[in-house]
Amino acid sequence: MKAEIIAIGSELLTPDRMDTNSLYLTEKLNSIGIDLNSKSVVGDDESSLEQMLRHALNRVDLVIATGGLGPTEDDITKKVFARVFKMPLVLEEQILRKIEERFRSRGLTMTSNNARQALVPSGAQVLENEAGTAPGFWLQMENQHALLLPGPPHEMQAMFERQCFDRLKSMSKGVRICKRIFKLTGMTESACDARIAPIYTLYKNPVTTILASPGEIEIHLKATANDESEANSLLDELGEKIEMELGDNIFARRGESLEQVVGMYLTMRQATVSVAESCTGGLVAERLTRVSGSSAYFLSGAVCYSNEAKTELADVPPLLIQMNGAVSREVAVGLAEGIRKRSQTTYGIGVTGIAGPTGGTPEKPVGLVHLALSSELQVDHREVRLPGDRRRIRWWASQIALDMLRRRLL
Amino acid sequence: MKAEIIAIGSELLTPDRMDTNSLYLTEKLNSIGIDLNSKSVVGDDESSLEQMLRHALNRVDLVIATGGLGPTEDDITKKVFARVFKMPLVLEEQILRKIEERFRSRGLTMTSNNARQALVPSGAQVLENEAGTAPGFWLQMENQHALLLPGPPHEMQAMFERQCFDRLKSMSKGVRICKRIFKLTGMTESACDARIAPIYTLYKNPVTTILASPGEIEIHLKATANDESEANSLLDELGEKIEMELGDNIFARRGESLEQVVGMYLTMRQATVSVAESCTGGLVAERLTRVSGSSAYFLSGAVCYSNEAKTELADVPPLLIQMNGAVSREVAVGLAEGIRKRSQTTYGIGVTGIAGPTGGTPEKPVGLVHLALSSELQVDHREVRLPGDRRRIRWWASQIALDMLRRRLL
Repeated sequence: MKAEIIAIGSELLTPDRMDTNSLYLTEKLNSIGIDLNSKSVVGDDESSLEQMLRHALNRVDLVIATGGLGPTEDDITKKVFARVFKMPLVLEEQILRKIEERFRSRGLTMTSNNARQALVPSGAQVLENEAGTAPGFWLQMENQHALLLPGPPHEMQAMFERQCFDRLKSMSKGVRICKRIFKLTGMTESACDARIAPIYTLYKNPVTTILASPGEIEIHLKATANDESEANSLLDELGEKIEMELGDNIFARRGESLEQVVGMYLTMRQATVSVAESCTGGLVAERLTRVSGSSAYFLSGAVCYSNEAKTELADVPPLLIQMNGAVSREVAVGLAEGIRKRSQTTYGIGVTGIAGPTGGTPEKPVGLVHLALSSELQVDHREVRLPGDRRRIRWWASQIALDMLRRRLL
Repeated sequence: MKAEIIAIGSELLTPDRMDTNSLYLTEKLNSIGIDLNSKSVVGDDESSLEQMLRHALNRVDLVIATGGLGPTEDDITKKVFARVFKMPLVLEEQILRKIEERFRSRGLTMTSNNARQALVPSGAQVLENEAGTAPGFWLQMENQHALLLPGPPHEMQAMFERQCFDRLKSMSKGVRICKRIFKLTGMTESACDARIAPIYTLYKNPVTTILASPGEIEIHLKATANDESEANSLLDELGEKIEMELGDNIFARRGESLEQVVGMYLTMRQATVSVAESCTGGLVAERLTRVSGSSAYFLSGAVCYSNEAKTELADVPPLLIQMNGAVSREVAVGLAEGIRKRSQTTYGIGVTGIAGPTGGTPEKPVGLVHLALSSELQVDHREVRLPGDRRRIRWWASQIALDMLRRRLL
């Protein structure tokens, strides 16, 4: 079974907006063995949509439309699909009453254009919208199906998940696709590929894809089988070999973020952490505290941008800064030790570097970062030279800082 | 003149990848008066692409294809377009020699599949690829045009900008579109719309669009005219009226970020700032330091997650915390005053709140945030209740903190 997705809305044809609904839908469809033939975005224009839909129905048996179900003139989805599927629109009293009730309960009067939302392609299954006003629809013409879903992602997802997914699953003849995502850091993409290509190229199923971003690599395994347990055992087999080869470089096996993994280890060990950072400007602390419950292990952070702040907030001696420069091994260690002692945490992290684009010198170029991790018994230090712009250098440095802590916690 | 964009590549039909090239192209096309009729993504499948292309040529005079120009079997773009445009592929010796030369200069032998890249639709204009191997093509059949551009964004952009843009501009009969983006904060979308709808609805040109995200609203004006200066004066006229109405709520007139604007004002006033934040976890400091050169005005930040850290890093008296609770007006003010005095900055910002999802109580629910801005002569305080999840609450709180500083600096 193959599908096409059509996103409807002129705003999605501007440079400021993207159709992200199709990513969610693709993930879900793939998981039940339905591949995408193509996807499109059309404006609020009846003839374009009609053409696009008719062509799609020449190619596939399932068309999913998102958007264009609202109450205004622009909202053309229902009209066009009703015409193509030969299911003329009729007013459904029950839906009309629900919409009126909704308005009444908020003390509002329903404007007449909202009645449009009670028009239903005759014979279509109505999909209730639990998170908004506009209902969705499931249309069928012989063996061809169309789902009309609302545009707002949370409305669309709730509707698809509860009212479409299981039925599509039972229609899609038993092929199942399962995925596994490994994340790693501390290796280049090519080094990673050189180590695992001899393994994964032996497998046509699962299919392996490597995606790289600054300081992080994702390995995606996608297995196709007759049922989920078979797909999962295919994933287990290849997954174990990849894990054996890459070992500790892998920090997540189910797609978790690095800060989530670090938080999990800190919780397990009943350890705490504090951070004193310069070039990352608060990013290390900000990432650690993105995790709900992080107040159990993250106690404090100091963003020591000026030299005075390094002394004031993390007790780095002014003379140490003067002698070695603010971007140095000594100051990174001083920051880590100072903040740890002052905050009385198990670990202290120190980061100092040059994020650029200005401030570099021949000896200390943009991208030079010193990182330190301190505990009562041990101090680790790393010096790195990171490529890219300010944003990328800051991100990458935060990634290394968190990874130093993760490796220590292993 | 209307256009369609087709992105080619099976990887763009997975949940992990998106076609972002179309956003760049749309921006450029819009600026010279070419609107998009629709856009599509198709896999590496000849018949799907051929169908999509033939349909597109029924609707528009310009089709832009990205991707599928590489040297492998999968790369079908050239073949399909050559067939539809009736311009059979011929081997272009000059290109072949260039590719061979490229390999030789790197000490590599050219594999035979690379010769494929020297096949040219006969009569097509070759577009040189300055950033990669695969050349692009401009095909023409009577009044219809197709641009075949490579998939990697930096190759595509360089090629489009240098070899396509001016020619398209001269083809598009002089219509020009200019844009202006206002950004504001401190108002709801509906309050904003209620104030400016009476103004902008009087104008069919420029077209006004309002985009809202948590704590920030963008007003996009798009003017169409015969030349740029005419378009700009249309923008000036409506823009001035909108500015008059919204006044200080507008923080950016050219799309700048709030942290950039705050940085600009601090620089102008030769003022400095420090931050002591709890629930935002370093986000306020991180945003301020995203701006290159921020070390001139941002001196230090304290992420005071624990009560002890509030005392240790920002001198908030323990008794004050005990009496009022960590999330209170008094503690927000204490953080702002403490960090300002300790860092000897012109301004001090204090933020404390409950980002959730846990930690809320009936009196102090998730989303409650106290913010304070302190200077030598004045302390401002705000108490807000922000909706949404942890991430949104943190972002919105950082937005309010930066905006309090901006308004003080005006």
